[in-house]
Amino acid sequence: MSPDLLLSRRDVDFLLHEWLRVAELCERPRYAEHGRETFDAVLELSAELAAEHFAPHNALSDENEPRFDGTTVTIIPEVGKALKAFADAGLIGAGMDEEVGGGQLPRVVQQACFAWFQAANIATSGYPMLTMANANLLLAHASAEQVERFVPPMLDGRWFGTMCLSEPQAGSSLADVATRAVRQPDGTFRLFGNKMWISGGDHELGDNIVHLVLARVEGAPPGVKGLSLFATPKYVVGADGERGERNDVVLAGLNHKMGFRGTVNTVLNFGEGVHRPGGAPGAVGELVGDEGRGLAVMFHMMNEARIGVGAGAVALGYTGYRRALDYARTRVQGRPLGAKDPAAGPVPIVEHADVRRMLLAAKSYVEGGLALVLRAALLLDDQLTHPSNDERARAGALLDVLTPIVKSWPSQWCLAANDLAIQVHGGYGYTREYGVEQLYRDNRLNPIHEGTHGIQALDLLGRKLVMDRGRGLQVLVDAIRATTARARATDHADLTDGTDVTAYADAVDAALDRLAAAVATAWESGEPRTSLVNAASALEAAGHVVLAWVWLDQLVAVAGKAGEFYDGKRAAGRYFLTHELPKVGPMLDLLASGDQLFNEVDPGWL
Amino acid sequence: MSPDLLLSRRDVDFLLHEWLRVAELCERPRYAEHGRETFDAVLELSAELAAEHFAPHNALSDENEPRFDGTTVTIIPEVGKALKAFADAGLIGAGMDEEVGGGQLPRVVQQACFAWFQAANIATSGYPMLTMANANLLLAHASAEQVERFVPPMLDGRWFGTMCLSEPQAGSSLADVATRAVRQPDGTFRLFGNKMWISGGDHELGDNIVHLVLARVEGAPPGVKGLSLFATPKYVVGADGERGERNDVVLAGLNHKMGFRGTVNTVLNFGEGVHRPGGAPGAVGELVGDEGRGLAVMFHMMNEARIGVGAGAVALGYTGYRRALDYARTRVQGRPLGAKDPAAGPVPIVEHADVRRMLLAAKSYVEGGLALVLRAALLLDDQLTHPSNDERARAGALLDVLTPIVKSWPSQWCLAANDLAIQVHGGYGYTREYGVEQLYRDNRLNPIHEGTHGIQALDLLGRKLVMDRGRGLQVLVDAIRATTARARATDHADLTDGTDVTAYADAVDAALDRLAAAVATAWESGEPRTSLVNAASALEAAGHVVLAWVWLDQLVAVAGKAGEFYDGKRAAGRYFLTHELPKVGPMLDLLASGDQLFNEVDPGWL
Repeated sequence: MSPDLLLSRRDVDFLLHEWLRVAELCERPRYAEHGRETFDAVLELSAELAAEHFAPHNALSDENEPRFDGTTVTIIPEVGKALKAFADAGLIGAGMDEEVGGGQLPRVVQQACFAWFQAANIATSGYPMLTMANANLLLAHASAEQVERFVPPMLDGRWFGTMCLSEPQAGSSLADVATRAVRQPDGTFRLFGNKMWISGGDHELGDNIVHLVLARVEGAPPGVKGLSLFATPKYVVGADGERGERNDVVLAGLNHKMGFRGTVNTVLNFGEGVHRPGGAPGAVGELVGDEGRGLAVMFHMMNEARIGVGAGAVALGYTGYRRALDYARTRVQGRPLGAKDPAAGPVPIVEHADVRRMLLAAKSYVEGGLALVLRAALLLDDQLTHPSNDERARAGALLDVLTPIVKSWPSQWCLAANDLAIQVHGGYGYTREYGVEQLYRDNRLNPIHEGTHGIQALDLLGRKLVMDRGRGLQVLVDAIRATTARARATDHADLTDGTDVTAYADAVDAALDRLAAAVATAWESGEPRTSLVNAASALEAAGHVVLAWVWLDQLVAVAGKAGEFYDGKRAAGRYFLTHELPKVGPMLDLLASGDQLFNEVDPGWL
Repeated sequence: MSPDLLLSRRDVDFLLHEWLRVAELCERPRYAEHGRETFDAVLELSAELAAEHFAPHNALSDENEPRFDGTTVTIIPEVGKALKAFADAGLIGAGMDEEVGGGQLPRVVQQACFAWFQAANIATSGYPMLTMANANLLLAHASAEQVERFVPPMLDGRWFGTMCLSEPQAGSSLADVATRAVRQPDGTFRLFGNKMWISGGDHELGDNIVHLVLARVEGAPPGVKGLSLFATPKYVVGADGERGERNDVVLAGLNHKMGFRGTVNTVLNFGEGVHRPGGAPGAVGELVGDEGRGLAVMFHMMNEARIGVGAGAVALGYTGYRRALDYARTRVQGRPLGAKDPAAGPVPIVEHADVRRMLLAAKSYVEGGLALVLRAALLLDDQLTHPSNDERARAGALLDVLTPIVKSWPSQWCLAANDLAIQVHGGYGYTREYGVEQLYRDNRLNPIHEGTHGIQALDLLGRKLVMDRGRGLQVLVDAIRATTARARATDHADLTDGTDVTAYADAVDAALDRLAAAVATAWESGEPRTSLVNAASALEAAGHVVLAWVWLDQLVAVAGKAGEFYDGKRAAGRYFLTHELPKVGPMLDLLASGDQLFNEVDPGWL
């Protein structure tokens, strides 16, 4: 598959350089070794590797999902080869510190690189995504000695990583995590419990799998405050960092999914007694970070995974859009409306207004989604490396408030882009031959894992927008206001194509005012049950306002630039600002009304 | 599977008897033999047969789709057994005339019966659905002699039927149908051409398959005016009605789909020369109806199939909702918002506001959709049997304008209900174990076949709403106004649950006014290209207005009635009127604005 059917390199370059000006990051000490050339080279490499090693087995691993014979998980060999190519190119550590062997690339560049792999094969890319997030957590929270033992083999692609949160009785409800951790005289712990929905939980792709497991030390309080985090590898890791005997982490079974089939998804039993490392019962685990701080530490990985999920949703939608566009330009069928002569030849379907509607909508979703994801990644860079203390804090606060949107918005709207890609293909889109149906099935996972839409909605309206006396909302408002001010200050006099940037800036400001007012109204009671009843509407409305901002900001960046690429940006921006943004009106009306229908419904009425 | 997880019999009874008062149909001569008892009996039988014979192999035939070895199509045996049970119960002819061996049931009752089978197994129900629509077309348009030869074996379940419209080069564009029909001295024709996307196109479930084929008699004009319809069976049917030699209709291959897998979908070659019936080339076809009237005649079947598609989409959404509700009542997880005690036990997830939101939305989509489908079926009964000439004409006109909505609205919103059913199940919903993901995959076909959303939108805004100088729109307006007037005249003083029927009536009237005005504005230019550019918004807005009407009409029907079932109707109606109807605002703004973005976008910008 041509890389051009995965993502548009032209768009990636626009976003990174013309919009986000990432080359300026190289003025900071951490990135001083880099420049536009190294960024370009690693992007080029990523596009090539993705097309060559990840895309070709995407359908194959969907049709031949991982199998478990009771002893071993078998995954088609193409997956291992692709992962080796990825690791050999140094991409696992691309964003990590040079001192641990990483490439110290800015996160924003690394995210753009990784999007090629996600577009080519979301399931295969799941393994390194989890491994990288796992290693990043360890780098931030584990002891130096733990880092030294666990991280280098992950960087080399020899070991993999997972995150183990959910349990069968507690899906989204982490307060109910029941896995027990029993303290041992040597300072390690023994874990006993069952974990559910563990992606990459067992396989033979590498020599070891480092599970990061939320568990409760005996005697710890109930609820999330009693949770601690444990590195619990499939094979016990000695003090020398060598892989030792088999730990008591046992695969109980695989989940068979609608899509994302190539990523093995598992039920794991810890301390079931199948293995007795060191002759004693329990799965050997090492505490990572402080006891009782497990959820806070795990959030390091969860936040990265949430952005990764959003990025994956974007990548799936993006490649669906590129394929639908390719199809619409070549598939000939029907005539323009009003054309009366049936003997006249048919036209490419991209000529039909309704096909353009679908393509333009999809373009606005996927290019907007990619812009959002890269903006978030740049905030992470700023949070870590901006020379100004205030700017680092501001970037961190803005990233916090954006994270549930970065996770959820693409999961909803780039899935909608996949839906449109099917529809553009007509009957062919519904067949397994054209591949766009797989993208749709794959993407349908994203509104569920790493916190469902419902969980993200509670996080946004219940915490992020209102925490620190409204600082979350304020940093968002400030960022958006900066863009609308710039939009008004920019000369768009050369535009003759129907784009009205000043009117769009007004519309964004108005929507933002209404969002802020509706959030305040929703919280008038101060009582979570009544305040959060319409949280889903708040999430959707805030998401669309944020994307309208992202599009407006892109429109400012293309001001005065001529050519089809920029005309395309203007058309997609115009679509989003005029066809999508107005959808927030009814959502905000609802939120502001304080309607309590969902609290008033008796389950017996359903 | 319990029938209760397919559809709610309580709701079906409410819709048929309390809302539509179908027992009153028995006052008409055609239905004089029937009464509430016969309706109840056939509904009960349908629910039982669907649960016993259709539901158990639903997942099995998804996992084991029809296979073609180059000679024969193999379908799992459960399908044939289920179809035999269906036919043996007399259900194929349930709605047909007694004189051809039918049961002469009202269409509205037959549609309700068939919904059980669609909910239980949409793929298996596809075979009788097409066969019934095929037979109904023949009953309406074929000669008495053709009816005698073709229809009785279909009624008995020995022969099946298809519709053959699309061709590889002409999906939705029937003007480009190129299959040739060559007139023979004996009055028959020989057909040559290729047909695509033919459901039920080849299999061994019966003794013969009657294909109804759109083709162009040699010398006929280009475009749809040159099309004629031909009954072209797999095996030639003699003058005596006996199955004769193999016709030259040859299976070229199967399409492998995302869902709906149990319904074999085929590419058929006509007159390719594999068989030479009577020693001559070509597939023997008999003209049905007048030459050059093929499309008009085929519309008899297409309209029935469009309502059938809408009904199928409803049924899939409905069973998804029932299963999600069942899950939400039994799955225990999490605590009420604001509950601080982590030691308190978790609650059934139906207690969470966001789960109720999803269930109530789904309930409003599927119960509203079923109401719409049954209302449309009753219009067909009225069109055929109402004692008043005026009422027959009015019913026909209203059915005409509603048909694209009956087809499209459930395809979009009951699919959304399936999406919500997955989401309510969380990770389990994404696994193949729980079945709701299959419903979602199955339902994704419905926005595509029998005329895509785009085609339905053009039909609605380009023809149905404006034809006969706006009579289409006027009959719809009259019907809705009658309901809003009744809603205002009904005493709802006993309501204390937040339902405000008078306000809802005002909202429906206002939306209707805006719809009518926006349609008029869109057509101001009188030029199809500019007028129809936002047809998709017109279809979506009109659909939501129609469903708001359907819900308001149900609210009138439950006025003064107490109990959980009626409280549920009020809650779902309130949801639709207050959370869904407002979504039409931005759509109608767009339509009224005359925005030409989709005409202005250059394909090079995408």
